[in-house]
Order: sequence, then structure tokens, then C-alpha cells
Amino acid sequence: MDIVEFTPTPDQYVWTFGGAEPALEVAPGTALQLWTEDAFAGRVTSRTDKPSQVLNPKELNPQTGPFYVTGAEPGDTLAIHIVSLEPARDWAASTTIPLFGALTGTDRTAGLQSPLTELTWIYEVDRAAALATFVAHETDFTMTLPLAPMLGTVGVAPALREVRTTLVPDYFGGNMDTPELRAGTTVYLGVNVEGALFSVGDGHYRQGEGETCGTALEGAMNVRLIVDLIKGGAPAWPRFEHDDALLTVGSARPLEDAWRCSQVEMVRWLQELYHLGQLDAYQLCSQLCRSPLANVVDVNYSAVTKIDKGLLPAATAYHGTHARLRQLAQTL
Amino acid sequence: MDIVEFTPTPDQYVWTFGGAEPALEVAPGTALQLWTEDAFAGRVTSRTDKPSQVLNPKELNPQTGPFYVTGAEPGDTLAIHIVSLEPARDWAASTTIPLFGALTGTDRTAGLQSPLTELTWIYEVDRAAALATFVAHETDFTMTLPLAPMLGTVGVAPALREVRTTLVPDYFGGNMDTPELRAGTTVYLGVNVEGALFSVGDGHYRQGEGETCGTALEGAMNVRLIVDLIKGGAPAWPRFEHDDALLTVGSARPLEDAWRCSQVEMVRWLQELYHLGQLDAYQLCSQLCRSPLANVVDVNYSAVTKIDKGLLPAATAYHGTHARLRQLAQTL
Amino acid sequence: MDIVEFTPTPDQYVWTFGGAEPALEVAPGTALQLWTEDAFAGRVTSRTDKPSQVLNPKELNPQTGPFYVTGAEPGDTLAIHIVSLEPARDWAASTTIPLFGALTGTDRTAGLQSPLTELTWIYEVDRAAALATFVAHETDFTMTLPLAPMLGTVGVAPALREVRTTLVPDYFGGNMDTPELRAGTTVYLGVNVEGALFSVGDGHYRQGEGETCGTALEGAMNVRLIVDLIKGGAPAWPRFEHDDALLTVGSARPLEDAWRCSQVEMVRWLQELYHLGQLDAYQLCSQLCRSPLANVVDVNYSAVTKIDKGLLPAATAYHGTHARLRQLAQTL
Amino acid sequence: MDIVEFTPTPDQYVWTFGGAEPALEVAPGTALQLWTEDAFAGRVTSRTDKPSQVLNPKELNPQTGPFYVTGAEPGDTLAIHIVSLEPARDWAASTTIPLFGALTGTDRTAGLQSPLTELTWIYEVDRAAALATFVAHETDFTMTLPLAPMLGTVGVAPALREVRTTLVPDYFGGNMDTPELRAGTTVYLGVNVEGALFSVGDGHYRQGEGETCGTALEGAMNVRLIVDLIKGGAPAWPRFEHDDALLTVGSARPLEDAWRCSQVEMVRWLQELYHLGQLDAYQLCSQLCRSPLANVVDVNYSAVTKIDKGLLPAATAYHGTHARLRQLAQTL
Repeated sequence: MDIVEFTPTPDQYVWTFGGAEPALEVAPGTALQLWTEDAFAGRVTSRTDKPSQVLNPKELNPQTGPFYVTGAEPGDTLAIHIVSLEPARDWAASTTIPLFGALTGTDRTAGLQSPLTELTWIYEVDRAAALATFVAHETDFTMTLPLAPMLGTVGVAPALREVRTTLVPDYFGGNMDTPELRAGTTVYLGVNVEGALFSVGDGHYRQGEGETCGTALEGAMNVRLIVDLIKGGAPAWPRFEHDDALLTVGSARPLEDAWRCSQVEMVRWLQELYHLGQLDAYQLCSQLCRSPLANVVDVNYSAVTKIDKGLLPAATAYHGTHARLRQLAQTL
Repeated sequence: MDIVEFTPTPDQYVWTFGGAEPALEVAPGTALQLWTEDAFAGRVTSRTDKPSQVLNPKELNPQTGPFYVTGAEPGDTLAIHIVSLEPARDWAASTTIPLFGALTGTDRTAGLQSPLTELTWIYEVDRAAALATFVAHETDFTMTLPLAPMLGTVGVAPALREVRTTLVPDYFGGNMDTPELRAGTTVYLGVNVEGALFSVGDGHYRQGEGETCGTALEGAMNVRLIVDLIKGGAPAWPRFEHDDALLTVGSARPLEDAWRCSQVEMVRWLQELYHLGQLDAYQLCSQLCRSPLANVVDVNYSAVTKIDKGLLPAATAYHGTHARLRQLAQTL
Repeated sequence: MDIVEFTPTPDQYVWTFGGAEPALEVAPGTALQLWTEDAFAGRVTSRTDKPSQVLNPKELNPQTGPFYVTGAEPGDTLAIHIVSLEPARDWAASTTIPLFGALTGTDRTAGLQSPLTELTWIYEVDRAAALATFVAHETDFTMTLPLAPMLGTVGVAPALREVRTTLVPDYFGGNMDTPELRAGTTVYLGVNVEGALFSVGDGHYRQGEGETCGTALEGAMNVRLIVDLIKGGAPAWPRFEHDDALLTVGSARPLEDAWRCSQVEMVRWLQELYHLGQLDAYQLCSQLCRSPLANVVDVNYSAVTKIDKGLLPAATAYHGTHARLRQLAQTL
Repeated sequence: MDIVEFTPTPDQYVWTFGGAEPALEVAPGTALQLWTEDAFAGRVTSRTDKPSQVLNPKELNPQTGPFYVTGAEPGDTLAIHIVSLEPARDWAASTTIPLFGALTGTDRTAGLQSPLTELTWIYEVDRAAALATFVAHETDFTMTLPLAPMLGTVGVAPALREVRTTLVPDYFGGNMDTPELRAGTTVYLGVNVEGALFSVGDGHYRQGEGETCGTALEGAMNVRLIVDLIKGGAPAWPRFEHDDALLTVGSARPLEDAWRCSQVEMVRWLQELYHLGQLDAYQLCSQLCRSPLANVVDVNYSAVTKIDKGLLPAATAYHGTHARLRQLAQTL
């Protein structure tokens, strides 16, 4: 199986879902080996960098893509299987961006308090050991954290002629910022425009659930994935599949609405998989699901509903796409 | 070590946090063996029961207690270690109560749509095998679910002279409805009134995170716990400790505020444990925490922030109370 | 017609809805001449007072009452007609209380930013001219504002055995903080306990809609009102009647839920008054209503739905109670 | 003074803010006489029309425009003075669209209840008398309502390369749906792209505050306006000016955030006009403002902060633009 490689030059970075020309056309079944720049567009590099001085608000979350998927039409389901996520650098950066984050007023939760102090933490990364080192600013505390690479952003072009910045998570995927989007995950997204036009970016070497301060261990990432296409069956909200779990992701504000979207999507999925009535599926979801938050900082907040396959009777989602891509991944 | 036993008679059920006479006075260090009636006050017993007909809205979530803890004063920290939770029945009930639950309009998210159909699911429970059987209403589907016993409700009397129904989760604990409150958990609650006046109830044989439909596998529970008192140190929001994790619980609406409360509490806890500055603790929490939802259906919604101890440097919370009670529990 | 006078001594101040012994029993039809202390319990008196130093968090929003209304039973409707509100002082105070207010983080919208600076504004009040003088802290700006006296708080004891602080607005009225509660208003509240146990307090000499900074022109108030009782007909949420408008008040978080409660209550009221179907009433409310916010700072937020009587066909609410009490007020 | 006339043909309707070619270039100071189709794109015409059958979800809220304003650059302030709004038809339509509206579950406040019944109300409009007639569906009730023409939508192209549907209200204006946007209003919008690219649409012959059911008395509108440009001074959120009031409009979810945005914008405006410190402006806004809701149904909710000029010392906003345009309007 061939692997198509693509590393964007800085002038090829894409800042929107929708509205950008495709970087490549890829056929369903194609494996891609990609490189993604970090969410800061590489502009935060030192412990003394102040986000308000070094960041360009028009150039955040650069995407690698978009990729035009041959044959993808509105109503279809795009499947993206993440084969591997490998940190591309020996360091990662996290910051407190003024008036951004969950424990501060923001442009929307608007207020009059002074912003939190701008600080940048540079984590040294030991890729072999899969560890990152935290060094405190305010005391001499240090500790190591295990890496847990994930992608903040996987999305397709939106519907209704819209073009959204890559800071937005929504029904089209986007900046969901969930640690569940890791190597081994298959992402199912509804296709809204011809060719789907998906892109990926925003590598996190590690992130807590909620992404409280607004930034993770941000770092450039080597991304290997396989793209596939299922005709029809577009889910209303992103669905993920792990070897051991089914997941749905809702994005909205307030946070309960994000979660409600993920829950209703899971109720629908259970109905499909087990031919259940709506209220029986509601009951089962109520007793079985886990609900790990994704982000509570982005344009929309994102929440996950997750059910362990081990709790469920055997069933095959999307004609076994996940298992098939998983197997294909072994051959790369 | 002695164990004080208490099983309330129906006329001893308590429907509020605060405002009720103590059932017993207990000294710090006392082990209690309690029985709690289910959240329906035992009124839902059959698959054909309609909540609107059988439930008494004034008699929901009966508490066992309250217990007056000798020497507890406002500002102190009550520690309740859950030694064991044993289902007291061979069945459990769950229902869709009209205009209650996360995927329906409610008395607050008020609307004009017709309520969902009222259904009751009775789960047969095999206590030896720790399994419950789901039987669908709308098709002939059945499946078994593993039991995962937890308490919906552990709380103390509120501050400011308030008396709250046992349906409320808040800073005083109460109806948090998180699966993290299970055997092996130590709950730390700030004391608001002399004697603390804690009570427990609302046994769930299993519950998903969020308690979507509003009810879990509700069932009477045998509860063994040890109560302890730490002078001073009252946390602003409930803290939990597991053998392998630290947790905080916030309760508010909208859901992001519940989560923010739990996050700020965790930032404070990290500051205390590691003598960190606020922004360093914020950064660490952002990268380390898990954020499993508790309930998105109650008077306040509840969200959990959880950090695995394995990710953290060694530290001792509350002078090692959890480890000490855990050990004590072995002697019972 | 007699007028019963009552001015509480400081030890008679009441800090809760529910849970307090009645100050007096009054028969329906009684006029009351009352005095209420300000929301600070009189503790803020000077431009240099810092709320965090002078306020007692356990003694805010003192109520005058509660009054036991002869014959009031759960399910009845208490009518309170505000005859007059007269500022009792020649000055009023407003402050920025740390982590309280709409444009700052709070105990629930929890965050890590530093609180806003604590400032106290003392307004000189010219009662004859009905004017208050604002004097800026940060520049030498001054201006006069017209007085518009209102009561922040009118409430009855809650249901379900609850006792709430007088800081809470909810279905039982309470700390709604709407400028619509002024002389000439009749307030209809559902009765939850025998005797209703209503109280009043929190005089504002003037307040904007939303009470942004958390405090109005707070001042002691002379309150004249007539209490009446309608058997049955308890509204789910407070209803107000002016000579020229019908109003409903919802209280909840997030703010849209407060508003939804008021809207559903107005839809119900329109259905009752004009024997309309639900969807026709929904349509009419959608096209006719005004929606002035009340407060976006209290334990629950409060929102008002208001329809000008001039837009509606003639109709008589509550058997003409408002008109009757209005007329009675003329005779005092 | 000349008036440029423009009536789009159906193929010229525009469905987005941003992303569309300008219909015309207009110089600052130009008067425009426009016609706008209704929000349904003219597809709802009869009492028996069901929105789910007749509406095209991709063709809602058609805009007239966009207009490229000569010389407008990012950071400038576009001023649009509404000279007159004249209903262009003798009828208007309102409907209950499934899962859209404030008193129902929606795509975001997702749930499992059945949608409300789809009904269409056709109002006969007497333009001379400025009255519309409501005819109930469920009973034989009828009544007349005074017309109060307004525009649901006035917006410019967004920043950050975004293209948004015309259903969205945000910092760029858009589908704010406030009755305050009426003849006599000057709208100030920050310019985000060269030429500003503003458009108008969504005529409402009358609407309540909040637009509860999701639709107003929707009707084609003849719109006369004057466009002007102020170099620099772009407000963060839309500002309006009436002869007798200053207004700001925030749009976000949850509703308190929409309102917070409008409040912070008003605090800034007061600071600018009176050279006040931030906390003094906060205090004044708290005591002076009215807070009429706009919509609680759209992609973002919108809330208005409004201060009567009569309450404020004399001041001139934007160099007297409103007064100048008002005067100019007299000469048309």
C-alpha cells in the first residue's frame, strides 16, 4: 500500500474549514503521511515569549490540507483512521493567552477584570521515553508528564456555504480538542460539500480534558492516517471508534448543549446498531456512558459521550470500517 | 473497632440537607453500617408503574441520617470514607419522569413540547455475579450490565441558615450523582454548622456519567462507612480521594460553571499539595486532569475534575486521612 | 381602612424565605406600612467603606416580615399590591463586592483573575426633587439620576420544606431585582405553605435592568402595601400586574432558562385569559412581548416577560384583583 | 441628494455574510432605496404551508447586497442610518419551524421530544392603518396588532476569512433580530474587510423581544437607508443610536454572555463619551441601563443594552453622525 506524503510550506498553511483550495486529491483508501505545524504557527518558542506579542491572531491553528476525497458527496460519511501521531519536535509550548481559557473572562464571557499574567511554559520532550518536563515559573518545582499525543483538529468543510476559522469545533469536526482523538481512532464525519475537503492540525503532545488554560503541550506532529469513504449515512455529529469504545462528540455553548448533542448522537447510534426504540436507547445510554469533556475554551465547547464496547453486545458499525482500516494500518 | 448500625424506619426518612434533627451523634472515627432506601422512596416497583402516578414529589431521595459528628465546627473538614456499598435488593428501577432528564425540556429549561413517554425499566439483579439485566420496552432486546454501586447523595447541612431538598447538589455535597462516589472513596466536605449533620442516600447499582435520563439503576443500599474529622481546612467544594486519584466536584448551572468550580478547587488543591503558584497549578491541571461529568439533570449540574495520583509526585492530602481510613476499613 | 404598621428592630431582621417565625398575622385585605433596612443591613455608609471589610455575609438582604396571611393555603395565590415606596434616607450606597456582579468572575463562574477594585459610591438623595447625585471615583465627573424606587425582594416561603437565603430569586419570588416591582405593581405569588409567610426588603432608589455591578442605589425604604388572597390559581412563576401591563418573572441559570420560565408562564396566562390554544398563545406572545432583564447577578438570574395591556383585548386577571386593590389604595 | 435604487432578482439573493461578490459599490454618504425578500425567501404564503415542506434550509434570510463601501478599511466604523422601513406586502407570515424556537428543543439544545406542531399564521396587513390581523388556529379568536417595522438583519463581512450564513448574529451584526433596529436607528458596525460589504434583510412587520417562536411577522420590506463611513473607531460589538437612546448589541450563548458583551461595550462607550474610568462607567451603566432582549432563538442569542439620552449629560457620539444623517434623511 502506497503512502502519500505531504508537508505544507508556511504559505500553504490553511486557516479555515471550507473556503480553501484543496492541497491534494486523494482516493478513498489512501494512506497519508503528513506534518502539521503547531497551533501557534510555530511562533511561541521560548519561556519569555508573550502570546500577545508573538502570536498573529489571524494565523492560529494552521491546517494541513484540505484534501479533496474522490467521490465524496454531501450526505456521505468520511472515515479517517489515525494510524500514528509522532511528536515532530523535542519541545512543546503552552501559554496563558490573555482573555482566553476556561478560568478567565473571555471575549464572550466578557468582563472587566484584568487578564491573567501571560506566561509561557516550554516543555522539554524526550521522545524515546515519551516524557515531557514541566518547569514551574513561580517556584522551583519540576516534574515529568507522560506524552499522550492527540490531534486538536480534524474537520471537513461546513455546509450552507460557510467558511469557519480553524479555531471552531462544530458538527463538521474541527477544533474539538479531545484526547480521544489519538492514534488508533477512526473519525466518522458527515460530508457537506463535494470532496469533503478535510484537514488536520493542532498537534498536542498531551492535554487534560477540558484544555483548561486554553492550550495543551502544543507541538508540530507527524501524522499518519488512512482516509476512507462510506456512501451515505452521514452522522449529525462526529463519531469516533476505538478498538474498545464508541464515541460521539458534540460542540456548542453552553456546555450542557455540547453534551446533549453528543448524547442524542449516541442514542441514535445505539438505535442503529441494535435496532432499539428511542427510549430504550436513551435508557441504555444513561446507564452505560462515560462523559469525558473535550474543551471548555473554544468558540464552541466540546463534550464526548463514550461507551466501552465491552459493555455492549457485539455489533459492527459502518460495515466494519474501523477494523478494516486498523488492519490496513498494520500493512503500512 | 465497633460498628454503629442504623436502618431508618420510613417515618425517619429525611428529605432535606439541614433542618432535620440528628438521628444519632457519632464520634470521629466511628464506623457506621447503614441502610438507605432508593431515590423513589421505594414507590417504583413494577415495569408498569408510571412515575407521575406513583411518586410523591415531596418524598424523593430519602436520606439516612443526619448524623451529628461530635466536635465538628464550621470551617472544619468532614471525612467520610466509603468502606462498602452492597445492593440490598435483587432488582433495581429506572424511569423517565415527565419533564425531568437531560434530553427533554424541564421545569427550568421550560418549553411547550409534550413530555417523553413515561416508562419504567425493572432490572433483575444477580448480586453474586454483580450483573443486572436490561429488558427493552420497544423491542425484544435484552442485555446484562455489570453492577457498579455508588451513592448519588452524600451531604452536610448548608451554610447561611439554608435548608435544601435532597435533590440538590452544591458546595455542601448533596445529590452529586457521580459514579466516582463508590466503595473506596473518601469524601472531604466543608463543615457549615455544628455537628456537620451529614446524611447519605440515593443508592445506584450502576449509572452512566451525566445520568442522562435522570435516574440510574435505583436501589436500596447497604452502606458501610467511617466518619472522621479534620479540624479546619474546609474546602470550598467537595473533594474526593481514591487510592489512585484526587477528585473535586463542582455543582452549578450552566454546566461550564459546575466544571469551573471543580477546576478552581483542583488548582487550589494542587497549590496546597505542592506549594505551587496559582498559574503553575493552572498549567498543570490543564495538562493532567480528566473531566468526567457527574449529572446534567439535577437542580445544579455536577462535574468532576480528576487527576491520577500516578501522574503526580508523591504527596499526602489531609495528613494521610484516606490511607488511614482505608487501613481502618480492613479491620472491620 | 386601617393600616398596620411594622418596623423591625435589627434583631427582628429575617435572612431567609421560610424557616422564620411570623412577625405578624394579617388578614387578606390588610394594608401594611413597613420599613425595610437596605441590602447591606445598613453597614455601608461611606465612600471609603470596603464591602469585604464592613459587610457580614450572613446578614445581607434583611427582610421585613414574614407575615402570616390568614387562610392562605398551598395552591392559593397571594396578591401583594405595592401602594407606595418612599426612600427613607437622604443617601443611597452602591458598591463593587469582590467576585460578585455580572462583569466579573464569581463563586460559580469561577476563575483565577484578581477581583475588581472595591469601590463604594454614596449617592446624595434629594427626596423632594426625586434625584440622586453620582460622584465619580476616578475623575471629577458628577451627574444626577432620577429616583425610581423599587423593591429588590418580595417573596413567600418555598415548598418542599426548603429554607432559602434572601439572596435567592426563584418560583417563590424572592430577590428578583426587577425595576418592574414598583409602586403600582400587584405581585401574584403561589402559596407554598400555610400562611404564605411573605416578606419584603432590599429597597432600591434606582436600578438598571440586569443590576450589572450587583448592587443598585441601595437604601432603606418605607413600603406601603395591601395584601390579598385568591383561593387557588397559584401561578408556577411570579406574575405582576401594572395598570398598563401584564408581567411574568422567571429565575434560573443560564439566563435563557430564566427567560424561558417567564415566557411559558406568560403563554399559560394568555391561554387562561383568552381561552387560547397553546400554540396560538405562543405565537401571540412571540409578537407582543417585551423582555426586560431583571438581574444577571444573583443566585438565579431573573428575566421578565411583559405585554402592554393596550396591545391586548380587554380581559380581567384574577377577578379584577389589581383594579380593586388599586382603588382601595386610593382610600388609604 | 440622489438615491441609488436596488431590488435584487431571486438569483441575486445572498445567503452569507462575507464570501459574496458586491452587488454595488457605494460611496459614503449615499442613500439607498432597497427591497428585501422575507426570511422564508417568499416560500411561506398560506395558512396551510408547513415549513418543513416548503422551506429550503439552504435559502433562508436572503440578503440584499452586499454593498462595497468606497474607502472602508478594517478598523473603520460603518454607519448605516435607517431612514424608513415600509412593508412591501399586504400580508405577513409566521410559523413554528420544527425544532427551532425558544420553547422547544433544537439542534443544539438537543433532546428526544417530538417537535411542536407546524403551524403557519398569515397576518393580513392594513398598511394605511399600520395594523395586522391575527387569526387563531385553535379557537376562533382574532385580534389586531400594530405594525412596528424593523430589520432582523444588518451585517458586514466577518473577520478572519470567515463566511457565515445570514442566520447568524455576531460581532459583525447579522441576524440580531432586535426591534430596536427600526426607522430612525443609526447602526455602527466595525469594518472587517475592505469595502465592509454590508447587506440588509429579514424584514419584520412586528416582533416581540426574544422572537420566542423563532419567526416574526415576516414580510418583504422597502428599506431606505443612508450609508456613511467613519475612519477608525471600530466598536467591538454593534452600536446603535436613536434620537433618544444609545444602544449596544451582544450576541453569544448562553444568553448571559450575549448580554455581558453588550454591557462591556456600553461601559466602553460611556468611558469614551465622558472620559470616565472603567469602574465609574460600570457603576453608571448598572444604574441607568435598560436591557431588552433581542432574540433567544438564533445561532447566537442577542441582547441589547440601552441608555436613554435623557438620563445622560449631553455628549456627541461619532462626531454627530447620527444627527447629521437624520437631517440628511429629511432632504430625501
